[in-house]
Amino acid sequence: MSSVDVPVALLGYGTVGSAVNRLLVESAGDIERATGHRLRVVRALVRDVGKERPFRAEPGVLTTDFASIRDDPSIALVAEVMGGVDPTGGYVLELLQAGKPVVSANKQLVAQRGAALFEAASSRGVQLRFEASVCAAIPVVKILRESLVVSNVHRVLGIVNGTTNFILTRMETGASYAEALAEAQRLGYAEADPTDDVSGADAAAKMAILATVAFGSRVTLDEVDAVGIEHVSPQHLAAARELEFVVRLVGSATLVDGSLDVRVRPSFVDRHHPLAAVEGAFNGVMIQGDAIREITLEGPGAGGIETASAVVADMVSVIGTTGTGFLQNDACWRSLERLPPGEFRSPFYVYVDVDDRPGVLAHVATRLAAHEVSVARLIQSPTPDGAALHIVLHEAAERRVTAALAEIAQLPEAHALPSVLPVVSDRGVAGLGWS
Amino acid sequence: MSSVDVPVALLGYGTVGSAVNRLLVESAGDIERATGHRLRVVRALVRDVGKERPFRAEPGVLTTDFASIRDDPSIALVAEVMGGVDPTGGYVLELLQAGKPVVSANKQLVAQRGAALFEAASSRGVQLRFEASVCAAIPVVKILRESLVVSNVHRVLGIVNGTTNFILTRMETGASYAEALAEAQRLGYAEADPTDDVSGADAAAKMAILATVAFGSRVTLDEVDAVGIEHVSPQHLAAARELEFVVRLVGSATLVDGSLDVRVRPSFVDRHHPLAAVEGAFNGVMIQGDAIREITLEGPGAGGIETASAVVADMVSVIGTTGTGFLQNDACWRSLERLPPGEFRSPFYVYVDVDDRPGVLAHVATRLAAHEVSVARLIQSPTPDGAALHIVLHEAAERRVTAALAEIAQLPEAHALPSVLPVVSDRGVAGLGWS
Repeated sequence: MSSVDVPVALLGYGTVGSAVNRLLVESAGDIERATGHRLRVVRALVRDVGKERPFRAEPGVLTTDFASIRDDPSIALVAEVMGGVDPTGGYVLELLQAGKPVVSANKQLVAQRGAALFEAASSRGVQLRFEASVCAAIPVVKILRESLVVSNVHRVLGIVNGTTNFILTRMETGASYAEALAEAQRLGYAEADPTDDVSGADAAAKMAILATVAFGSRVTLDEVDAVGIEHVSPQHLAAARELEFVVRLVGSATLVDGSLDVRVRPSFVDRHHPLAAVEGAFNGVMIQGDAIREITLEGPGAGGIETASAVVADMVSVIGTTGTGFLQNDACWRSLERLPPGEFRSPFYVYVDVDDRPGVLAHVATRLAAHEVSVARLIQSPTPDGAALHIVLHEAAERRVTAALAEIAQLPEAHALPSVLPVVSDRGVAGLGWS
Repeated sequence: MSSVDVPVALLGYGTVGSAVNRLLVESAGDIERATGHRLRVVRALVRDVGKERPFRAEPGVLTTDFASIRDDPSIALVAEVMGGVDPTGGYVLELLQAGKPVVSANKQLVAQRGAALFEAASSRGVQLRFEASVCAAIPVVKILRESLVVSNVHRVLGIVNGTTNFILTRMETGASYAEALAEAQRLGYAEADPTDDVSGADAAAKMAILATVAFGSRVTLDEVDAVGIEHVSPQHLAAARELEFVVRLVGSATLVDGSLDVRVRPSFVDRHHPLAAVEGAFNGVMIQGDAIREITLEGPGAGGIETASAVVADMVSVIGTTGTGFLQNDACWRSLERLPPGEFRSPFYVYVDVDDRPGVLAHVATRLAAHEVSVARLIQSPTPDGAALHIVLHEAAERRVTAALAEIAQLPEAHALPSVLPVVSDRGVAGLGWS
C-alpha cells in the first residue's frame, strides 16, 4: 500500500475546525492505515488570522483568501466548519463546481441549500458529505445511505435536540421548566437565547435532513411542522409517569402510502421504547424499515470534538472511496498484550448466603477491606436459614475481589460459595448532566 | 451515470441466500441509484439443485460446482451465506486468492479463520466484508471501521446474543430459567440444543470479531473468557431489581494501557444504562471512545431478512467503492406527495380539565366516539377546581382527534382547551417477545 499525501483545506478554524485539525494530526497513523493516505491541512479560511486558536495551525495555513483554496489544484478535499448560510453556501457551491469534494457540519446549509449544492456535486461527480450536520458523531447519515439501501425505510423517529432532551429529563426529576432551562444554560447546553432549541426549529432542520436522506426526496425546512417544549408542564410529566410514559421532543418522518409527513412534537414515549432510554443531552434516532425492523442509534448529539470526529469520518470516507486505500481490510495492524484476567477492573455485585448472627457482617466487611475492596451498597435480606447479603462493590481489580471472596467462603458463617457478577454502570458521559 | 450489470454469486442458497437474492431483485432500483450498478445473481452454490427454495433462483443459477464460480472471470463479487467452517473456509480463501471480493455472514468463519482470509484479501487487494456475521442488520462493523477511525475506541460493550437476552428479560417478568428457555425454543429463538447460546459461546465468537475490528488486533475465539447464563437465578434477578439493575449477558472488550481484555459475563446493568433498554431478542452494542464519548446501537440481532439486509449492504459497499457509482450523492431521486397533516395517524395522549360532576365523562367519551376515536386508557384525578382527565387514545387520524377535542372544548364542563400530544409506542417488533 503506497501512502499518498493528501492536502486538504478547512473553511473555518474555530472550535470544530481546530478539533478537526487536531484529530487529523494526532490520528494520522489511524487514517493512513484505513485509507493509505495522510490528510494534511494546508489551508484554513478564517476572518482573523491573528486570533488565538484552541489548536494552532501550521504557519501559513490560516488565510482570509477563499480563492487560494478554490483555485489550488493540489487541495483534494475541503471541510466546511464555519457555519452560517451566507457566505458559506456560495463558497461550498464554488468548491463543488471546481470539482472539490466537500464535507460539511452545517445543518442550516444542508437543510436550506441542499438542492443546489447536491446538484452541483452530482454534476461534477464529487461527493458532498454531511454526517456532522445531524447528531454530531452518531453516524446516522452514513447508515441510512450505505447500510440501509435495501431496507425500505418507512419511518425515522428522532430525539435530535440535546438541549430540549436535557430540559425534559431534568423536569422528570422535579425541576420546573425555568429551572431546567437555567441549568442547561449554565452547563452550556442552551444558548442565552434558547429559542432555536426550545421552539423545535433546530430539531426541524435536522429532521428535514434525515427525511431527505431516508426517503430520497427533498424535504425543506418549511415543510416540517414543529411544536417546541415551551408548553410542556409539570402536569404532563406527572401524567406521563402515571401512565408509564416519558416526555420527549420527538421528530418523526413517516412515509404513508407514498406520502410523506415530517413533524416535531413533544410526545409521550412508552417507557419500554428505546427512545425513552435517551437521557440528558444525548440524541437518539430510530429507523424502521422492512428488512431491518428497527435500528436505534444513541449518543452525544453535540460537542466540538464529537462533531469534528464526524467531519473526519466523512473525510476518511471520501478519501477511502477515491484512492487506493483499503478501508475494509488491513484490520489487524498491531499485536496487543492480553490483560492478566485478574487485573480486569470493574464494579462487582456479590451475593453471599450466611448465618444470621451477630458479627457476620463485620467478618465479611473485614475480609473485603483487607483486600482493599470497598462497598458501594449493601442490602441484607432474610432467607429461610439465615441471611443473604447483596453487595455492590466499587470498581476494583477482579483478583482482589476473588481473593476476598475466597476468604469469605471459608468463614464459618458462610453457607456456600459467594456468587459474583460484574456491574455495568459507567458511561463516558462527563458533563452530560448525570451525576 | 452509466449503469453497469454486475454478475454476482452466492455460496449457499438457504434462508439467508434466498433472502439476499430476493432483496437484490426487489430492490434493484435502490441499488442502482446508490451504486450505478445492477447486481444480478448468476450462480449459487448448493448441495441439492432440486430442493424447494423460499425464493426461486433463475433457471441455471443453482450449481453444485464451486469451480464454476471461482473460475468465472465475469463474477465480480461473492456472498458467502452457507455457514460452517469447512468446506466454506477453503472456498472463501480460493475466491479471495482468485481476486474476487467476498462478503460473509459467517461468524464462526470470521472468528476462526479471519487471519488467513484477511491476509489473502489484503495481498490480492480485494475486500472481505462481514457485517452480517455480528448482530445481523445492526451496522456495527461498518461504524467501527469507517465512522470511528479517529475515535480511539477503548471499550466495546455488547449484548450480542438475542436468545439469552430474551430469556433474561422473560425471567425479569417472573418466568423461571426453564420456562423462559422453553418459550425461546417455541418461538424459534433457541435451538433444540441451546448450549451454544446459553453457554456464552455464540457471544464469545461475536465479541472476538468486534474486539478485532475495534482494536485492530486479532482476537481469537479461545482468548475470550465466557460465562453463560445457566447459573443466573431468580435471586439474582430479585437482587438486581432491588438495587436498580437489570441482568444482561454482556460481552466486553476493553483496552487498558495497551492491554486487551475480552470476556462475556452475566452482568448487573444499571437501569439507566443504554444497554438496560435492550429487551427481548434484540442486540445492543455500546462503543466508547475518546472523540465520541459513547455511541449505542440497538436492533434485531438475528433473522433471515435482517441478515440478508446486512449482506446486501456489504455488497453495495464493495460495489460502491470500486465502481463509478456515487453512493454519496444522488440522494433525491423522487418527489413525494405530502401527507395532509390531519391524515397523520398516531396514538395520542389528551389532557382535559373539567368540572367534577356527574355525566362529564360520558360527554367527553361520547364526543370521542362520535369521531370514531377510541380510548385505550383513562385516568381521572382531582384538581383544586374539578378533575383532570388523562386519556390515551388508540391510533387515529389526527383530524378525528382534533375534531373531537374541538367539540369537547365547547362542553360547558370543560375548563380550557384540551392539550394533545402524540404517543410513541409502536415498534417494528412482531415476534420479538413483546406483547
